[in-house]
Amino acid sequence: MLIVMGYKAKKSDVDAVVKVVQAMGLRAEPIPGGERTAIGVLGNTGYVDDSLIRDLPGVQEVIHVSKPYKLVSRAFHPQASVVTVGGVRIGEGERPVVTAGPCAVESEEQIIKTALAVKKAGANLLRGGAFKPRTGPHTFQGLREEGLLLLSQAGKEAGLPVVTEVMSPDTVGLVAEHADLLQVGARNMQNFDLLRELGRSGKPVLLKRGMSATIEEFLAAAEYILAEGNPNVILCERGIRTFETATRNTFDLSVIPLIKELSHLPIMADPSHATGKRSLVPPMSKAALVAGAHGILVEVHPEPEKALSDGPQSLTFEGFDRLMEELKPLYAYLGF
Amino acid sequence: MLIVMGYKAKKSDVDAVVKVVQAMGLRAEPIPGGERTAIGVLGNTGYVDDSLIRDLPGVQEVIHVSKPYKLVSRAFHPQASVVTVGGVRIGEGERPVVTAGPCAVESEEQIIKTALAVKKAGANLLRGGAFKPRTGPHTFQGLREEGLLLLSQAGKEAGLPVVTEVMSPDTVGLVAEHADLLQVGARNMQNFDLLRELGRSGKPVLLKRGMSATIEEFLAAAEYILAEGNPNVILCERGIRTFETATRNTFDLSVIPLIKELSHLPIMADPSHATGKRSLVPPMSKAALVAGAHGILVEVHPEPEKALSDGPQSLTFEGFDRLMEELKPLYAYLGF
Amino acid sequence: MLIVMGYKAKKSDVDAVVKVVQAMGLRAEPIPGGERTAIGVLGNTGYVDDSLIRDLPGVQEVIHVSKPYKLVSRAFHPQASVVTVGGVRIGEGERPVVTAGPCAVESEEQIIKTALAVKKAGANLLRGGAFKPRTGPHTFQGLREEGLLLLSQAGKEAGLPVVTEVMSPDTVGLVAEHADLLQVGARNMQNFDLLRELGRSGKPVLLKRGMSATIEEFLAAAEYILAEGNPNVILCERGIRTFETATRNTFDLSVIPLIKELSHLPIMADPSHATGKRSLVPPMSKAALVAGAHGILVEVHPEPEKALSDGPQSLTFEGFDRLMEELKPLYAYLGF
Amino acid sequence: MLIVMGYKAKKSDVDAVVKVVQAMGLRAEPIPGGERTAIGVLGNTGYVDDSLIRDLPGVQEVIHVSKPYKLVSRAFHPQASVVTVGGVRIGEGERPVVTAGPCAVESEEQIIKTALAVKKAGANLLRGGAFKPRTGPHTFQGLREEGLLLLSQAGKEAGLPVVTEVMSPDTVGLVAEHADLLQVGARNMQNFDLLRELGRSGKPVLLKRGMSATIEEFLAAAEYILAEGNPNVILCERGIRTFETATRNTFDLSVIPLIKELSHLPIMADPSHATGKRSLVPPMSKAALVAGAHGILVEVHPEPEKALSDGPQSLTFEGFDRLMEELKPLYAYLGF
Repeated sequence: MLIVMGYKAKKSDVDAVVKVVQAMGLRAEPIPGGERTAIGVLGNTGYVDDSLIRDLPGVQEVIHVSKPYKLVSRAFHPQASVVTVGGVRIGEGERPVVTAGPCAVESEEQIIKTALAVKKAGANLLRGGAFKPRTGPHTFQGLREEGLLLLSQAGKEAGLPVVTEVMSPDTVGLVAEHADLLQVGARNMQNFDLLRELGRSGKPVLLKRGMSATIEEFLAAAEYILAEGNPNVILCERGIRTFETATRNTFDLSVIPLIKELSHLPIMADPSHATGKRSLVPPMSKAALVAGAHGILVEVHPEPEKALSDGPQSLTFEGFDRLMEELKPLYAYLGF
Repeated sequence: MLIVMGYKAKKSDVDAVVKVVQAMGLRAEPIPGGERTAIGVLGNTGYVDDSLIRDLPGVQEVIHVSKPYKLVSRAFHPQASVVTVGGVRIGEGERPVVTAGPCAVESEEQIIKTALAVKKAGANLLRGGAFKPRTGPHTFQGLREEGLLLLSQAGKEAGLPVVTEVMSPDTVGLVAEHADLLQVGARNMQNFDLLRELGRSGKPVLLKRGMSATIEEFLAAAEYILAEGNPNVILCERGIRTFETATRNTFDLSVIPLIKELSHLPIMADPSHATGKRSLVPPMSKAALVAGAHGILVEVHPEPEKALSDGPQSLTFEGFDRLMEELKPLYAYLGF
Repeated sequence: MLIVMGYKAKKSDVDAVVKVVQAMGLRAEPIPGGERTAIGVLGNTGYVDDSLIRDLPGVQEVIHVSKPYKLVSRAFHPQASVVTVGGVRIGEGERPVVTAGPCAVESEEQIIKTALAVKKAGANLLRGGAFKPRTGPHTFQGLREEGLLLLSQAGKEAGLPVVTEVMSPDTVGLVAEHADLLQVGARNMQNFDLLRELGRSGKPVLLKRGMSATIEEFLAAAEYILAEGNPNVILCERGIRTFETATRNTFDLSVIPLIKELSHLPIMADPSHATGKRSLVPPMSKAALVAGAHGILVEVHPEPEKALSDGPQSLTFEGFDRLMEELKPLYAYLGF
Repeated sequence: MLIVMGYKAKKSDVDAVVKVVQAMGLRAEPIPGGERTAIGVLGNTGYVDDSLIRDLPGVQEVIHVSKPYKLVSRAFHPQASVVTVGGVRIGEGERPVVTAGPCAVESEEQIIKTALAVKKAGANLLRGGAFKPRTGPHTFQGLREEGLLLLSQAGKEAGLPVVTEVMSPDTVGLVAEHADLLQVGARNMQNFDLLRELGRSGKPVLLKRGMSATIEEFLAAAEYILAEGNPNVILCERGIRTFETATRNTFDLSVIPLIKELSHLPIMADPSHATGKRSLVPPMSKAALVAGAHGILVEVHPEPEKALSDGPQSLTFEGFDRLMEELKPLYAYLGF
């Protein structure tokens, strides 16, 4: 439930409303805006009787929210959010960022070489998987803690903040210690205990859309993180599962402008996982940025043909250099 | 089957191969290329024994094609095709075209007003439905022949070639008389008798992707038209049906660069039907062009709120003017 | 719009309502029921003002229908329909029928041998494709008219009514002459000109669900046939297209009881096309019948490994015999 | 990799092979069969060079497995598995079981009343959610530990083993203490840390198919549990996400016979979640059993209209009694 105060409402009016809400056993979170204050009501498990509230002084309107999210919504928070990751600002009005690196950290040499190469080409963040979710248990599952340390080291050597996936609540602390942006993979988008733990960590989170998640479910998953008090969430469209198998997933770019209407959170796009095909990464990177993405994730590997995972969708260093060159006039067109 | 001749092969070698193929009861279609000639073999219903062919003079290679298409493929026809519609050239290397107009022709005033408005704003073709495929029989089915004549008249007054849908083989002749580009709607992508009739008509065809058509089925549908001798086919991505209902369809933009790898045919995109939401049309129009589309289809209506169909996805005249203004710097970026 | 008359309404009351509706430029179709008469209003393209109607003598209720179908609905026609095909009754309360035969008619020997074999095993109808819709133009397209005559001959020799697909409006007459049940394939479910022509033919129609058709679209397609005056429509669930490729399609059996709630039309199921795998046909045939299907379509071929199409999903004669034996106790359980 | 020993191979031959495999840094797991022994090789992250193995005495064949699963496969374990839950045997050859109960445990009265009612009607297990995964954080999340204790108490009073969902690795111990069968929900099918923890627990696990999981991914998820040494896994088809919204999910019954070909694990079906509609539960329960399911899960609630979740798909006590009565002749038909 959202309580919208009139623009003439006084601070004492807001305080009075908060008290009534708390007396009902619910939480009240005032959101001061430029012109007027709104008060979010949290903690209810169903419809809330508003008869005690709607007639209080200063209350202009009580909006019963039927969506499973509220904190992430534009209605609740009209101003676009910018999330800062290791000093890099991501969101509306900021220069779109490029996150690059291998699918998985495989060795010290591989990740440091890649870090230096993508930094030189102009990347803003370094990505690399340490804990890898794999379909079956008998394949490479990542270097785990060792991979995390190598990634962190590589980021430092190259001067890039690092992004890596975290797969379970009990490793959030460890990953948060070494990474700047904690990624929730598509398979874990509705791993609610993980989301809650990330909410409590306060660290920036990159939340990938689930393979068959609707926009509503995607935003509701982000809501779990914000509801624990962590507003630093960046969404990421990475393709959905459909009948079409010519591409690895179906890159649902229309959700980028749509989510920017519905939510204040930044949104990035991952053309590597969405298409699964090296040759499609450059055109779809550009399309994503023109559709309004606040950044892209691109897989880069020194020798894609030898990669332990996702080789066919990884760019070589040369391919990544070329993409970054091609992005320059696009950034100029976009005004950055 | 595709017979690739060596680059030193003489015309008499090609003629000899053609004769052998014909003696096998099949059709042979020589495709002269810049460096060498290929000969397409058509009319077989399964695997063809190539023992009589592979040792003939000048034959370099015999490629057994497992795909259900051949004439539309890049392998068969490496050079990108440009299709000319009423004097407007559509395809690789040409300035991307904008096709604009209402979903349905509703009245003389409506279509002429729209034609003049979109022409003034810079559109290259006029679209408008006369024969309308509708889910149920009890809703407006289009003005049919009357609508076709009004569209044709509007196109002439505005100086724009016209595009309209044709729904059945027996109206191909009528529609071909009055329209410059004949559209096959998503529901009819595999209406094979219609495709064959359009193949025989020789007229430019705009083939929309079926709601649940794979890329292979899409190209195989185009193959039906080319197989009848009509090379003037333009493909059109208009969104596919998936679990996501926040947009009307899921705009599968990755297929644009993918199809350009697989086929020589031009491909356009329809952000209006793909998204179903007015506010998403401008960003997704730009994303489609950056992904490599050779043109876009945009629904424009004088009073969208009164439109007999597809109102929520139609731009107003003002909205279309704004979009065309915004496309100018994008065209500059794209080099046109 | 549906006008429900009170159970005491006189024939003159009904006539008066019909006149008023006609004066509004619409068609009125009285549907006499056991207890009361309803009057369907057709021909409107949007909402109809009912102020002239709701106060007429005998009118009990005016129902504004938002669904794109009406004639096929249970609300409009509460009694389940039974369709008779060559003397065989198909629908609620009747013994479920088994339609068997090859995907395509390939030769006189093949179809006659199959007809006799499936008749002997207990099949009720013979199926076989003469006009075949194929993804690409370069594969076997069916024996066409010759196949139709062979199928008809085989049906006569075996004493079985025959079912075959019709692909375009201009062959409806020809197919109707030789077949007892005219099948509309999944690809043509929204070929509206074909549906209208079949409506005018009056012949029994087997309408297959489109690959990505919703229930609403499926019923609305049937509505096109009924709206032309042909009530002899049998629906058929044959699997939908989803992300899962382990089966050819996803057999959506839940729609069988659901459609029986929404519509009075009989509904059959096609486990061969739905699963695409011989070993799954027997268990899914039984599951379909237990879910409430009024019949099944099963592909049977003398030598599946040599079939020109759909070999992997066809049963051998022995396999079909076994299935028919296994169906006996199931029919007993079902009370037939 | 799977090493198949000849039927004359001696125990010493098997031991020798195991030693060689271990010397390669891999695990070898001998699987004694009725006629011959196979040795599963685990721990490899890619292709294994078999040159040291294939010529050892007694080795008949070395099969390189490309599937992401092995322990769950029929090839590896030809005999169907039966899993025992609180004394109830579930699997091939056993009487199919009925698991019934509310979506969520809401109060002591609700769960005990339901337990006694479903026991009386003939249910074999009691289900009820204590930890509830919900799309958004602001709705009822289950009574958690309290709900678990109430469920356990109700099961004891009614004499029924209990099934409940476990959502995160750190609650596996707690849930395992009070429940007989631990359910992994669709959203967590690829929560690999949870699967591994369940593998270590040794407790029977009910693994629900993910909303957009292929059969291969489903079986590979089960493989995670078996790979940790827990063979007590029961699979459950509960509907997949497709474009069709007339039912809550699309009940993919064809996978039941298909999975029985591919895997030795028992498989159940959940018609309540699959259809989301009370009236469809009875027909689809029967269809699932006839398709070969080893059991069904049915939601039952004393007052569905007041249920805190999933009311529309829950049966009343009367509805459940009726279903159980109707299942009697079906069980007789199935030979139980």
